[in-house]
Amino acid sequence: MLMQMKLTEFLEELGSNSPAPGGGSIAALAGALGGALAAMVCRLTVGNSKYAQVQSEIAGILSQADQLVSELACCVDADTEAFNKVMAAYKLPKATEIEKIARSEAIQQAMVAAARLPLGVAGNCLKVLSLAVRVLAIGNSNAASDASVAGLMAHAGLHGALYNVKINLSSIKDQTTQQDMQAKVAGIIAEDERLHRELLAVASKVIG
Amino acid sequence: MLMQMKLTEFLEELGSNSPAPGGGSIAALAGALGGALAAMVCRLTVGNSKYAQVQSEIAGILSQADQLVSELACCVDADTEAFNKVMAAYKLPKATEIEKIARSEAIQQAMVAAARLPLGVAGNCLKVLSLAVRVLAIGNSNAASDASVAGLMAHAGLHGALYNVKINLSSIKDQTTQQDMQAKVAGIIAEDERLHRELLAVASKVIG
Repeated sequence: MLMQMKLTEFLEELGSNSPAPGGGSIAALAGALGGALAAMVCRLTVGNSKYAQVQSEIAGILSQADQLVSELACCVDADTEAFNKVMAAYKLPKATEIEKIARSEAIQQAMVAAARLPLGVAGNCLKVLSLAVRVLAIGNSNAASDASVAGLMAHAGLHGALYNVKINLSSIKDQTTQQDMQAKVAGIIAEDERLHRELLAVASKVIG
Repeated sequence: MLMQMKLTEFLEELGSNSPAPGGGSIAALAGALGGALAAMVCRLTVGNSKYAQVQSEIAGILSQADQLVSELACCVDADTEAFNKVMAAYKLPKATEIEKIARSEAIQQAMVAAARLPLGVAGNCLKVLSLAVRVLAIGNSNAASDASVAGLMAHAGLHGALYNVKINLSSIKDQTTQQDMQAKVAGIIAEDERLHRELLAVASKVIG
């Protein structure tokens, strides 16, 4: 539903006094925008004889980028839905002991889902960043700033998504789930650090 | 015109084999998204008795954030138009000496405009980042991750815009214009570094 809004309407809805859509949806959108920019640079490289030697690799990157854009675009709406489910669970009745237990379980289930979703977004943003770094290195050099911005958006989306994982993680009671997600967060952060450093180094060499 | 597109249509247009819209427009959009998120956190703070002491400051930040969103949203389209003008100047006739001179002047004028526009975007992203840092510190703590994502988007938009300044700067022949813009770029980078560090420190304290 959010993805069917005009950009002007979306900005207005985002800035309104309703907590959703919020940072989680914007993190997914940032990743999708980065993926689309990376795909554009691929399309500006496809069929260009100056880049004859990388045509096969670029075609592979393009296909992955298109797929990631589509997945991340879905998460713009899905993140807001996951947030709304957490809010709905908090509003469940808590008059009796049975109701209290059911409510608490519903909150936990919704919280885990609301943490898993941005964890998936962060993983997809990492993939977009990795593609952007490669496209910047081998793609059409006239679009070097576009490939660089693609990487910056993916990097921002990744950390935005991780904030949303962390803020939900603190409320998850199941220790195994919490530790498993924390390990995944740490892995994504380490890989992002390496790729982001590479992006900035190549961009600085090519753009200045 | 871009801002009147649905998000799904915009992503498709962005990923297409046309070089515009590109990274410059996405940098402006990132800043606008950050500004709208910061405005949302303000609206979730306004009228909340827990934040009675900061109501006046929050109202001031909200008004600035709304204004910045509106200016940055305009730049999404304006950046693409500035890019198209550079392309149009390159296509001017160059058969005679007079045509060559006129073409060269038109290219330079379009290049300066295409560098000035993202420089303004970077300056506005810096303002959004500054507001996000403050909102994260004093605004509704339930929306801490939103304020943090607001800052990340502004930071990404700022550097994305600066790549677009730099890529055009290298083609500008007028030394005074070039040096003046370079000094402004350096000033924005220094201020961004300080604010971004502060954002990450506060976010890490509040979110983990």
